Amino acid sequence: MPLRKSWVESANTPDTDFPLNNLPYGVFDAGDGSMPRCGVAIGDMIFDLCKAEGDGLVDVGGAVFDLSSWNEFMELGSDAWADLRRQLTELLAEGAPPRPDYLVARSDVTMVMPITVAEYTDFYAGKHHAFNVGSIFRGPENALPPNWLSIPIGYNGRASSVVVSGTDVRRPWGQLKGPDEVLPRFEPCKRFDLELEIGAIVGQPSDRPVTVAEADEMIFGYVLLNDWSARDIQAWEYQPLGPFQAKATATTISPWIVTKAALDPFRTSTPDRERELLPYLQETGPMLYDVDLEVALTPEDAEETTISRTNFKELYYSAAQQLAHHTTSGCAMRVGDLLGSGTISGTEQDSRGSLLELSWSGEEPITLQGGETRSFLEDGDTLTLRGAAKGDGYRVGFGECSGKVLAALDNPYAR
Amino acid sequence: MPLRKSWVESANTPDTDFPLNNLPYGVFDAGDGSMPRCGVAIGDMIFDLCKAEGDGLVDVGGAVFDLSSWNEFMELGSDAWADLRRQLTELLAEGAPPRPDYLVARSDVTMVMPITVAEYTDFYAGKHHAFNVGSIFRGPENALPPNWLSIPIGYNGRASSVVVSGTDVRRPWGQLKGPDEVLPRFEPCKRFDLELEIGAIVGQPSDRPVTVAEADEMIFGYVLLNDWSARDIQAWEYQPLGPFQAKATATTISPWIVTKAALDPFRTSTPDRERELLPYLQETGPMLYDVDLEVALTPEDAEETTISRTNFKELYYSAAQQLAHHTTSGCAMRVGDLLGSGTISGTEQDSRGSLLELSWSGEEPITLQGGETRSFLEDGDTLTLRGAAKGDGYRVGFGECSGKVLAALDNPYAR
Repeated sequence: MPLRKSWVESANTPDTDFPLNNLPYGVFDAGDGSMPRCGVAIGDMIFDLCKAEGDGLVDVGGAVFDLSSWNEFMELGSDAWADLRRQLTELLAEGAPPRPDYLVARSDVTMVMPITVAEYTDFYAGKHHAFNVGSIFRGPENALPPNWLSIPIGYNGRASSVVVSGTDVRRPWGQLKGPDEVLPRFEPCKRFDLELEIGAIVGQPSDRPVTVAEADEMIFGYVLLNDWSARDIQAWEYQPLGPFQAKATATTISPWIVTKAALDPFRTSTPDRERELLPYLQETGPMLYDVDLEVALTPEDAEETTISRTNFKELYYSAAQQLAHHTTSGCAMRVGDLLGSGTISGTEQDSRGSLLELSWSGEEPITLQGGETRSFLEDGDTLTLRGAAKGDGYRVGFGECSGKVLAALDNPYAR
Repeated sequence: MPLRKSWVESANTPDTDFPLNNLPYGVFDAGDGSMPRCGVAIGDMIFDLCKAEGDGLVDVGGAVFDLSSWNEFMELGSDAWADLRRQLTELLAEGAPPRPDYLVARSDVTMVMPITVAEYTDFYAGKHHAFNVGSIFRGPENALPPNWLSIPIGYNGRASSVVVSGTDVRRPWGQLKGPDEVLPRFEPCKRFDLELEIGAIVGQPSDRPVTVAEADEMIFGYVLLNDWSARDIQAWEYQPLGPFQAKATATTISPWIVTKAALDPFRTSTPDRERELLPYLQETGPMLYDVDLEVALTPEDAEETTISRTNFKELYYSAAQQLAHHTTSGCAMRVGDLLGSGTISGTEQDSRGSLLELSWSGEEPITLQGGETRSFLEDGDTLTLRGAAKGDGYRVGFGECSGKVLAALDNPYAR
């Protein structure tokens, strides 16, 4: 599929993340005292859906775009999702009447959380990541847990920790214990890390087990996701019930939801199975996406270094498989549930999606532009995730997912 | 403190769970087509707070009792909590004008969820339980994980799985693998279990680490909680990231929130420490409660057997300690967060809070009244938790927390 042209000129350049082919959904704060409201990104602009709905220019059968989240629209279901995309594609296409009054410059607004996160689940679906982490902690011969090739392993995260790109992230305190120490100390995290992930947003509910195909239908769209991780807190706390405070400081998502429809031309199958899956987990079509991803690290007052380049398709399990597995027990899923993919690492050293892997647990610090090195994140570092599916002369991009690490509090109990 | 008498006669008997000393909060559906609304239990009756608020009989500064959850009232904070209790104690005391028009018989209504659960966290704070489970899986010499005496171990659960007492619970399907099998099967759970717990309801938010004393102030009240557990699903899935689908079928809570104020006369300290806690986890006063607990199992068409008797004070960590730990990383807590205590087992064989422990993983099935035996739950079994603090001639009770096990679906994907 080629670039679809828009009357919004900045949407027609090959390097924009937001051509007419994309039409990602977000919530923006115009800074004029009005409530944050729904919009769609087009080039350098945002098409104001609240205003367009108010004027009858778009109509999905009810007022949902004056709200500060996309949850109510998601609840309308997949017919409404397709209908809105059709309306917007017509309205914004080259040849349609230009409506500059409905545009707001992206540079003039602040993006806020696009959804109310119902619950947040984080998976571990990247095989290269699981193998790397397992190798670091248990050696390569025992790297993959026995269940890994049978189950899209996941754990419940903390929805209250999910923040939008641009939110500063405070280095946490926690219980730390060195391998040679008997007892833990309560100190600021020394091994603060990122995890490059994609978040899938559940747009329709379920109250019983769903098939992989049904699960794929339930997904509304995708965001970039950085699951900030305190490796030293995790090492001491995670046995036997899994990560808890190590993952609760923050999880940053990008503000624009790239819809499943926009990514449809970039669908691709999961890698070949190394162990046959149980039937309930078998895909009935391609449900991963070919999306190039990168991680950039910018120290305070220094230039940016791209520290990793990988691709969404490196995952072993798709979000649809994860969601299907999530429902096997009868677990109810709700509109606004967010599923983190797990860290997406490739096979090469510079395609690893976390500093734990990039620096091999600190044994091989990476070198940044300008000569600084990093084993883990330092105060003042800004982490930026970027991603885009590459079409013929255009890209379906995710924008940026960034956050800056602030120093730990001197005393977390000072008031 | 002695029994406080009420003009509601059924509240003055020594065996009621709901004397004037208690005043637990719930949400009831009168079955007349009106929205479920807030009420307080008194003897066999419910005092209709929605009607009382509408008529100006109670006043907390805003209409909050016409709603179907206590979340909005909780948000008002501890001064409002104390004020409502004072108003209700005056209104319902012996000597106050009887107001039978504001009473509804408990037997005439259906109780629904008393709160909207924001997020659900389950802890593992019972030492006898952790020791028993560890002994079953790893032997007594390695029973307690190294971190257990330092951290109130917890994991995030699934809020969408929390249901109110009386809700049937469908036996889940899941991936099961026997110890001698190489690959898992997808089958109905064979080792379905209960966990006797107390749930603490967070009534005030926090966005930074809180002390144990602050955490205690944030807690609104307590409920009985049964964390239904699929032991065979858990055994195969839980490494390395903890329990997931094994705990997602259902978690049942009792419908009446027993307030912290009602339990205040029964405060007691946690057991002596076997390892000194880090300062942030040290209690500044007694924060556990002396509450007798019991578990009853009733097979279909058979009589009830009490299978376990224990006490809330058997826990090693209080809910305040759990909540304080939960915030260490900066994790935001919200009104309506629910914290499961972890299974509460005593030291004796008949004081164990799960069938896994009671039957020692199926090696020693228990015998019910009538001669049936149980290693794990069978279809048609009804599980009922009960609990009460025992005062001088009265009890502050929790009512019942029950659920019946339904047979697994023949085919979970049939529509």
